[in-house]
Parts: sequence; C-alpha cells; structure tokens
Amino acid sequence: MDDGDPIADLVKLLVRLPGVGEKSARRIAFHVLGADPEYARALGQSVATLSTRVRRCGACGAFTSRDLCAICADPRRAVELLCVVARPMDADAIERTRAFAGRYHVLHALLDPLGGVGPAEFPLTPLIDRIQRDGVREVILATPTTVEGEATSLYLADALRGVGVAVSRIASGVPHGGDLEFTDPITLGRALEGRRSL
Amino acid sequence: MDDGDPIADLVKLLVRLPGVGEKSARRIAFHVLGADPEYARALGQSVATLSTRVRRCGACGAFTSRDLCAICADPRRAVELLCVVARPMDADAIERTRAFAGRYHVLHALLDPLGGVGPAEFPLTPLIDRIQRDGVREVILATPTTVEGEATSLYLADALRGVGVAVSRIASGVPHGGDLEFTDPITLGRALEGRRSL
Repeated sequence: MDDGDPIADLVKLLVRLPGVGEKSARRIAFHVLGADPEYARALGQSVATLSTRVRRCGACGAFTSRDLCAICADPRRAVELLCVVARPMDADAIERTRAFAGRYHVLHALLDPLGGVGPAEFPLTPLIDRIQRDGVREVILATPTTVEGEATSLYLADALRGVGVAVSRIASGVPHGGDLEFTDPITLGRALEGRRSL
Repeated sequence: MDDGDPIADLVKLLVRLPGVGEKSARRIAFHVLGADPEYARALGQSVATLSTRVRRCGACGAFTSRDLCAICADPRRAVELLCVVARPMDADAIERTRAFAGRYHVLHALLDPLGGVGPAEFPLTPLIDRIQRDGVREVILATPTTVEGEATSLYLADALRGVGVAVSRIASGVPHGGDLEFTDPITLGRALEGRRSL
C-alpha cells in the first residue's frame, strides 16, 4: 500500500516473469507473505542461485547440474539420430512426447540477421563437429516454425549438405484437435502442402 | 532433465504458488535461467526476505513496511467510517475502486469453527477497542460472500449491537457485465432479495 514498500517491489520484479500479470503478481506476493517462511526462503534462494547451479551439458548444450545431461549420459539413447532444437525447453517438450529415442543438440541461437545473428555468428561448427564425432546418420531439424526457425532450418539443411548426413524437418500443419475454421491460412497451407498419402 | 536437478527443484517450489501450474513453472524457471543474473538475485532475495521486511500496521493490521500503513497515516481518511475486511489484499481491492474514503480494519481471520476459529478464538476485542478509540460511527462489513465470510459478518453484526455503531454489509448480486443466464442461483437469489427501488 505504501510507496516503495516491499510488496510493491516484489510485484514489480514478478511481473517481468512470463505469464505473470499485475494481478497474479499480487496474489503470489500475498501468498509468499502468508506462507511458511522456510518455503519463501527456499524459493527465493532457488531463484537467486539457479544460474550458478545450472550449466550446459558438455555434449548437447542442454541445461544440467552435471558435466553431461541425463540424455547424453544414457547409453540407450541412439547417437546416430540427432534432433536439433533452438532452446533446452524445446528438447524437454519433445521428451514429453516419449516418441524420440535419439539425442539432442541445443543451438541456443536462431539465425536472425536483424537481431545480430547472421551466418558468421551462428554456432555451426559445434554441430558439424558433433555429427562427425558421433557418426550421426540423421539430423532432425526441430527449430520452431517461426520466421527465424524456418530460416535456421533452411540454413542448416544447406550447410549440412556436404557433411554426409540425412537431414529432415519436423512436420508443420493443423495441431491435434484443431478446427480448420480457426486455423490460420499459413498453417493450413502448410498442412495441405505436407499432406501424406494414406 | 536430471533427477534432483536445480530446475526441477525450482519448478517444485513454483507450482505451490497460486495460479502457477507445471507448465508456467517451467517457463518461469527457464526465463530466470536466461535472465540477467542480477535480476534473478533481486527477485530471489525479495521473495526470501519479504516476510521480514513487511509487518502489520499498528492501527489496522494491513501489511506495511512502517509502523502505520499509508492509509492509517493519512489524516484525510475519515476515522468515523471503518471497513472490516478479512485479508490485506481485500483492502487493496477496495482501494482500487477509489470509492471509499474511510479506514480499514483487517481481521486476518474468518469465523470457521470446523477450521479451529470459533467465537472464542476470533479477534473481536481489537475491533471493538478500535471502534471505541477512534469514535467510529459506521462499520462496513466487507468480508467475502463465502460461507465463512457471511458467518463472520453475521457474528460481527451481532457482537457490535451493544457498541453503539451503525453496521452495514456490502451488497451481493449479479456482477457488472454478468449475464443472468450464467449467474448461479444463490447469487441471483441475493440479487433479487437485495433489489433497490428506482
């Protein structure tokens, strides 16, 4: 209620989080106030020290607390099949499908010349080194279906042409449960273009 | 991705916050990882130390960082008009209406015999002391329109009968913009019961 009071300060920091508006920030702040102080301490410390306790996997670049992430350390995961994603959370999303038994390569970047990431800045060498070192046979490009994601996918497909590896791109189309009436024209166009014979 | 890794630990703490599910907790954790470490440190410290920096206003019980909250310290707010609320955030919600120029009394409790708050445990004395000390002339009962809130309101109306103060209850009815078709029968019944002549 006061100017410059601790609750308002916390709300100001909270609204910078994704999906947290003014109203939910206030609810969270009051919840923290009413909660067990030990919980608030643990949550605060966890937030404050997260980046110091998390590093990038030495093989794939995903976030982990060890040298190698659980997937790269798992001998049952196929090394010949490499799924290239933009961000660690994209690998997590694919993991939740339980449909992929290969490994990941996290770019931590997308081609975005206007944003300062042109071909010269793009981290291409670590990917090519990995493909050659691990004897990868197929690369699945799972960058997002945005402008930058598509550009990155085309760029990588081109760059990997001489490397002797099969390159595929994830399908784009109408999402599961999607109504055609409410599907945007670009998605619908892609769904038509990517049609498969039955 | 790993068992017992820092991201999963933070997600476990985050999902206990109101309005934060598994998915938004993951988004928040990854956002914190990608954010300026100084921001993560400030947010974490703010969460961890909030309860130590916030106390209850000596007059009304609202949260404040000083001895008196901004409202109780404001001589322009009428002392004769006292709005009784259950929680500090309820006072905040009323403040946002800009329709109330009196002061608040925060109960920090509702009558809830099954939850261990019977009439003997209910903090009635501080409210009566305040009414007599400040010369309050009208008490507006703004406890929630839930079972506990209504019970508390009836209990307070009864308890204040001998104190020589007018007691009113906030109106209950169809919310602004509400469609009668989708209004629950209890609310609609209250709206009918509380009808005002035009």
